[in-house]
Amino acid sequence: MTQFTSDRLLLFGATGDLSRRMLIPSLCALDAEGLLDPRIQIIGTARSDMDDQGFRNFAREALEQFLPAPRRGSMAQFLNRLSYQPLDANDIDSFQALAAKVGTPQEGLSIFLSTAPSLFEATIHGLEKSGLAGPNVRIGLEKPLGIDLASSKVINDAVAHAFPEDRIYRIDHYLGKETVQNLLALRFANLMFEPLWNAAHIDHVQITVAETVGLESRVAYYDDSGALRDMVQNHMLQLLALVAMEPPVSYDATNVRDEKVKVLRSLRKVSPAQTVTGQYRAGAIGGQAVPGYDEELGKDSDTETFVAIKAHIDNWRWQGVPFYLRTGKRLPKRTTEIVVQFRNVPHSIFQGRGAKTVPNRLVIGIQPEENITLSLMAKVPGLDRNGVGLRSVPLAITMPDAFAGPQRRIAYERLLLDLVEGDQTLFVRRDEVEAQWDWIDAIRAGWEEQQQEPKTYTSGSWGPSAAIALAERDGVTWHE
Amino acid sequence: MTQFTSDRLLLFGATGDLSRRMLIPSLCALDAEGLLDPRIQIIGTARSDMDDQGFRNFAREALEQFLPAPRRGSMAQFLNRLSYQPLDANDIDSFQALAAKVGTPQEGLSIFLSTAPSLFEATIHGLEKSGLAGPNVRIGLEKPLGIDLASSKVINDAVAHAFPEDRIYRIDHYLGKETVQNLLALRFANLMFEPLWNAAHIDHVQITVAETVGLESRVAYYDDSGALRDMVQNHMLQLLALVAMEPPVSYDATNVRDEKVKVLRSLRKVSPAQTVTGQYRAGAIGGQAVPGYDEELGKDSDTETFVAIKAHIDNWRWQGVPFYLRTGKRLPKRTTEIVVQFRNVPHSIFQGRGAKTVPNRLVIGIQPEENITLSLMAKVPGLDRNGVGLRSVPLAITMPDAFAGPQRRIAYERLLLDLVEGDQTLFVRRDEVEAQWDWIDAIRAGWEEQQQEPKTYTSGSWGPSAAIALAERDGVTWHE
Repeated sequence: MTQFTSDRLLLFGATGDLSRRMLIPSLCALDAEGLLDPRIQIIGTARSDMDDQGFRNFAREALEQFLPAPRRGSMAQFLNRLSYQPLDANDIDSFQALAAKVGTPQEGLSIFLSTAPSLFEATIHGLEKSGLAGPNVRIGLEKPLGIDLASSKVINDAVAHAFPEDRIYRIDHYLGKETVQNLLALRFANLMFEPLWNAAHIDHVQITVAETVGLESRVAYYDDSGALRDMVQNHMLQLLALVAMEPPVSYDATNVRDEKVKVLRSLRKVSPAQTVTGQYRAGAIGGQAVPGYDEELGKDSDTETFVAIKAHIDNWRWQGVPFYLRTGKRLPKRTTEIVVQFRNVPHSIFQGRGAKTVPNRLVIGIQPEENITLSLMAKVPGLDRNGVGLRSVPLAITMPDAFAGPQRRIAYERLLLDLVEGDQTLFVRRDEVEAQWDWIDAIRAGWEEQQQEPKTYTSGSWGPSAAIALAERDGVTWHE
Repeated sequence: MTQFTSDRLLLFGATGDLSRRMLIPSLCALDAEGLLDPRIQIIGTARSDMDDQGFRNFAREALEQFLPAPRRGSMAQFLNRLSYQPLDANDIDSFQALAAKVGTPQEGLSIFLSTAPSLFEATIHGLEKSGLAGPNVRIGLEKPLGIDLASSKVINDAVAHAFPEDRIYRIDHYLGKETVQNLLALRFANLMFEPLWNAAHIDHVQITVAETVGLESRVAYYDDSGALRDMVQNHMLQLLALVAMEPPVSYDATNVRDEKVKVLRSLRKVSPAQTVTGQYRAGAIGGQAVPGYDEELGKDSDTETFVAIKAHIDNWRWQGVPFYLRTGKRLPKRTTEIVVQFRNVPHSIFQGRGAKTVPNRLVIGIQPEENITLSLMAKVPGLDRNGVGLRSVPLAITMPDAFAGPQRRIAYERLLLDLVEGDQTLFVRRDEVEAQWDWIDAIRAGWEEQQQEPKTYTSGSWGPSAAIALAERDGVTWHE
């Protein structure tokens, strides 16, 4: 952990969609709560030709649209922190002008970099040459960072040339979410779960990231990428690692990431038969007719918009426990969740009394609601004349009313604050990224070898029927 | 299990307090729900000279006072089932008249016997001689059944002369309570608890039965008995057995009681130093001044109105886990509860982040409210600027609104129904009673040997300070 607080923050892609919807609202909300360094100055940069006032107007509109009024505080104070410098990433002089605009921080500078892959190396080079990569500078990197292990290495090598790993903050915004962090609290601040958290007591794990949207505006990026690289390689494997990891020595960047990477390296290589890919066709979601992927794209494509994988972790704890992953676009509802399905009791003493026991289950909801629910069997009050009455009772572990606190936060609030303050715990380390790509590349190689093409599925369904079969073959039903 | 339904029910002590407050209301409520055999006839008997109509009037008043109107149903139908026969337990002719009144059941007869210890043997003898102990007769026995192992054996021998064990139903009304049965559902219908339910994961168990009342009307009985024999010997040891027992083969009378008796026989003999006795003095409860035990009794006495015991179970599962028991009169509030205190996590990964983990705890509330609460640590939503925020969240496993059902039942409803239908699972077997007395007698012998006299405590306090010390010496605080 580098021990300085940033009093300057440089935002690349400052006029883009992520900035407008997430970054500027997050920063304003943090500032309104007095959580940012009072000296902080935020410099936006992008290709667009704009002056400080233009950027402040842009930011004001973003705040009015994307940040609830009670969280905005004195917008004027926040807007006064903003300035703007246009940039041509291929022009080194342009970086000199940017460096002049950033000026000399009193303590340190944090950079948030989200840029087109084609400009990545030039940007890092520009930062280095213009003095924006010194020992008091951290860099936050937004995806995409490569399309496979090889390209990821090129990018990471370029960054490593200018920044040491302990000043690189690779963002996976899922790690900024409350319930994702709560999963660690649940596992490691309670005695109750760890003795159960293994193959002897857990039947399987499901991780679902379901979207209702289709291609949206990211046409070219998505068609080159596909669901496996867009969702599984980063977010879903990070969730898997947090569910599966051994107890870290302590809750800090080195120890947590050491344990995550061990999981990622323990992932068994997956054969194509353990995967199902799909591409949506026209259908309806929530009663609205929607077009097929090929229609949206305007051409035929082999890109998968859905993928389901049966994964295994080859270590002592998880031997024989399948991790079912699935993600897709144009599914019936937007939901991200982790289901930890415990085994059933080994022997039901109530069987002779006509009572059925449902296995315990922990459901960690990440989107759209953040919540954790534990299902337990309890006795139905009554005289049990027709056998013992048992029923599964859902217990909400993170009840909204169990805590008084601020409104729901944007995941980026947490991550931007950790970036400017220098806490890497919730950021992804290079060895993790590479272990993720290693596993993903092997899946893609398998698909190519077998010339596996995505099956079609109707928009508004849960993907190709083969994805249902992938789990049902094991007697497992996807949680819906 | 004897396979007949009783169409006759004979209630001894029918004009007594238990009958008025519990038995008659329970039977009426069951009848209103159509749960009793439609042929059922209920014959009351006692010393009082009363005719059928007199008894029905007595019952009507009891119902109006002790059963909520919505549960009474058509009282007329129920009252019509009632008849009455006075009895002189020392007169054998009197039993002949009772037998004539009971008549010949179509299927079977159940007897509910609560009688003065002095009349016990004569009563059993009378039943036997008058033909009221045949193969289609069950007998339910209400406490007290002896004052030590020797007297308990005399009573059990007398009953055994007339009834085989599989037609004897020894009542401990705590076993009729919902949460007591729910404890078994929780332990054995969920995978989650059993792997944790041992010395490796449980720090200690507390069982508290606290009363606010003093002597009340049971002056002679209580002063001869004391808290140890009145509460610990039966109710509290039954609760302990249910918490501590191994998984039974199945939920039935033989298997459940086989496991309970194993626990009771595993109880380590307790030295006087592991016990604290007390007797209340004048004080105040809920702002009301109350007199001391000696004043209520009208004389000096050595009887304990409070007892605390640190018990151990000598088997593999519970080695080193203290079971703290305490019960007393004139305590600050009426409460019966079991606290299962888990150990803390062996190592807190959040320690460096300033977060304290509170050990998990399961609290089983039996009186006045029936509920089960599991306390877990969860993350407090927020940005954790001052360390990771963790908080203990109480989860109500038996939420009143988790189930739709009838109003709260009287524990005797369940037990009377099991008696007339012939299910012994929730009744106490002779070997259990004798194992209980064996352990209790040794405690009393120790007191006598050491001439231990009860310490005084102020009414409205939690007993003598030595009882606090008994637990605090081990770093344990009584749950209040």
